[in-house]
Amino acid sequence: RAEAALIDGKAIAETIRREVAAEVAELRASHALSPGLAVLLVGERRDSQSYVRMKKAACAETGIESIGVDLPADASEEEVLTAVRRLNGNPDVHGVLVQLPLPKHVNTERVLAAVSIEKDVDGFHPINMGQLAMAGRRPLFVPCTPKGCIELLLRSGVSMEGKRAVVIGRSNIVGTPAALLLQRHNATVTVVHSRTRDPAAITREADIVIAAAGVAELVRGNWLKPGCVVIDVGINPVDDPSTKRGYRLVGDVCFEEAKQVASMITPVPGGVGPMTIAMLLSNTLLAAKRSKGLVE
Amino acid sequence: RAEAALIDGKAIAETIRREVAAEVAELRASHALSPGLAVLLVGERRDSQSYVRMKKAACAETGIESIGVDLPADASEEEVLTAVRRLNGNPDVHGVLVQLPLPKHVNTERVLAAVSIEKDVDGFHPINMGQLAMAGRRPLFVPCTPKGCIELLLRSGVSMEGKRAVVIGRSNIVGTPAALLLQRHNATVTVVHSRTRDPAAITREADIVIAAAGVAELVRGNWLKPGCVVIDVGINPVDDPSTKRGYRLVGDVCFEEAKQVASMITPVPGGVGPMTIAMLLSNTLLAAKRSKGLVE
Ligand SMILES: NC(=O)C1=CN([C@@H]2O[C@H](COP(=O)(O)OP(=O)(O)OC[C@H]3O[C@@H](n4cnc5c(N)ncnc54)[C@H](OP(=O)(O)O)[C@@H]3O)[C@@H](O)[C@H]2O)C=CC1
Ligand SMILES: NC(=O)C1=CN([C@@H]2O[C@H](COP(=O)(O)OP(=O)(O)OC[C@H]3O[C@@H](n4cnc5c(N)ncnc54)[C@H](OP(=O)(O)O)[C@@H]3O)[C@@H](O)[C@H]2O)C=CC1
Repeated sequence: RAEAALIDGKAIAETIRREVAAEVAELRASHALSPGLAVLLVGERRDSQSYVRMKKAACAETGIESIGVDLPADASEEEVLTAVRRLNGNPDVHGVLVQLPLPKHVNTERVLAAVSIEKDVDGFHPINMGQLAMAGRRPLFVPCTPKGCIELLLRSGVSMEGKRAVVIGRSNIVGTPAALLLQRHNATVTVVHSRTRDPAAITREADIVIAAAGVAELVRGNWLKPGCVVIDVGINPVDDPSTKRGYRLVGDVCFEEAKQVASMITPVPGGVGPMTIAMLLSNTLLAAKRSKGLVE
Repeated sequence: RAEAALIDGKAIAETIRREVAAEVAELRASHALSPGLAVLLVGERRDSQSYVRMKKAACAETGIESIGVDLPADASEEEVLTAVRRLNGNPDVHGVLVQLPLPKHVNTERVLAAVSIEKDVDGFHPINMGQLAMAGRRPLFVPCTPKGCIELLLRSGVSMEGKRAVVIGRSNIVGTPAALLLQRHNATVTVVHSRTRDPAAITREADIVIAAAGVAELVRGNWLKPGCVVIDVGINPVDDPSTKRGYRLVGDVCFEEAKQVASMITPVPGGVGPMTIAMLLSNTLLAAKRSKGLVE
């Protein structure tokens, strides 16, 4: 049988970024509206700094204004909350993103709940999660990574209706919202987690697999039903002395085995990764349009 | 093989009501605190009136004060919202319950979101649903019927950890919160709904089945894995000329067939039904205790 087709997240994300850029230009021209994203960074974690840089660069490329707010690692929770509230009140800011993780002495739950739900472009506010879980409701924003997974399926022509789907992982930022989104598209969803018995047998029932466990190459070829579609969210460093950095990144799926079984699969890197930022841009655009009543 | 053991919801609910009554008496004696539940009824639907009557009677029996607020069927949304806000502000009221369904001209979503989350004993506020969906968070209240289902499992010694569970139905008041609760107890959960293909085969994989589809006797004996545990939420009237009322109530499970296959099963009536009100009383007690800082 033929090898799985690649779902090219990089190319799809690029298309979305171009679509967003076009809309941003149009908003500026016809409504004098400049979408703005505030990125709040507390402390100096290297990885967080690099994510923030990537987000700002993506904003610049699409014409979205980015407003960086940097607080020292020892900022008090009250200082962080004050910064969030100030951004909530700033009319030039349409999206407020709090870069995670926050320092340990700051209560993440409290800070995320302080973001105005109209500016919650990360979709992490419990009201947005509640609306995502509830039938007949619509969240203002959906978290970027799971939204990116679904967008990859949609833009690859994969129908979810009536399909069996397995989501591996149940985190707030990926697994749980991914499962809720698949269900909203009328898939029949099973959530596999670390306490699941025989995850291989369960995953083998799925037409669509979203893997977000954070375990390198957890999903082997024999976990997959022939012809299934695989979305691999994992980004895991594994030692590799043959590379300059001494490691390389692999997904939660054993790609070499899976591509022999699946009909479509996302690579790592170049699959879900680029979609996360594309969805952040798209959520920021949505927030800006909504602030002027330009969306339903 | 032996027939399934009955899970006696009536007896378990009675035990819970006695436990609640004892705690209510104790609160009154040692903290001069009288738990109070407000029940807001809009219009004069017969079924709603009867539910409200049952809830008030259960309050009276356990020593909880009930405050009935009745509005005419043509009350405006603003009048309903005003009534809710007044109850939110009333210190003698610890729980606010809005009897559903509301008349069509009133936006249910808006009214439910107006209930103070500290008094949301029905657990229908989107923040409570979001917290239920989110790992590491705790909702202030869990909706009564699904909470009752889990309580039946716990009090019958059924462990959920690592078990496969199928929930049939994904409504906001039963199916979705039931699935989220099972998952919090580390079951591996699949949600079956009206667009699911081959629900029988999927249900047959489950060690625990919660049926909440609202379809009389949907789940046949051959949908069940031998030895599974069945919680039947359905309450469906079917014609029966041999009865005085001309109908009888059956569940979503074909009881006669299922009891030959399952190891434990709830009857209808007398299973989940009585648990819903018991959980409402228990949520009201919780709200009252929390209002005085008597719970973590
Ligand atoms: N592409 C992108 O842009 C992004 C990629 N990621 C990547 O996605 C992966 C998941 O991230 P995140 O959701 O934040 O991770 P978390 O660590 O928060 O959650 C991992 C989840 O996987 C479950 N899990 C862990 N081990 C196993 C196992 N052996 N079998 C089945 N389930 C298991 C856990 O179960 P339990 O709940 O029982 O502990 C948990 O629910 C990571 O590799 C991360 O780097 C994350 C965000 C964005
Ligand atoms: N014991 C108690 O105290 C209570 C009992 N109930 C009873 O529980 C039952 C469910 O109530 P409720 O959740 O409010 O009902 P809803 O009508 O709101 O939801 C029914 C759910 O079942 C799904 N469904 C419908 N038909 C099928 C089918 N043939 N196969 C699989 N799934 C199906 C629907 O799917 P989809 O989303 O695709 O439409 C929907 O998600 C009713 O009988 C009700 O009377 C309810 C509340 C309290």
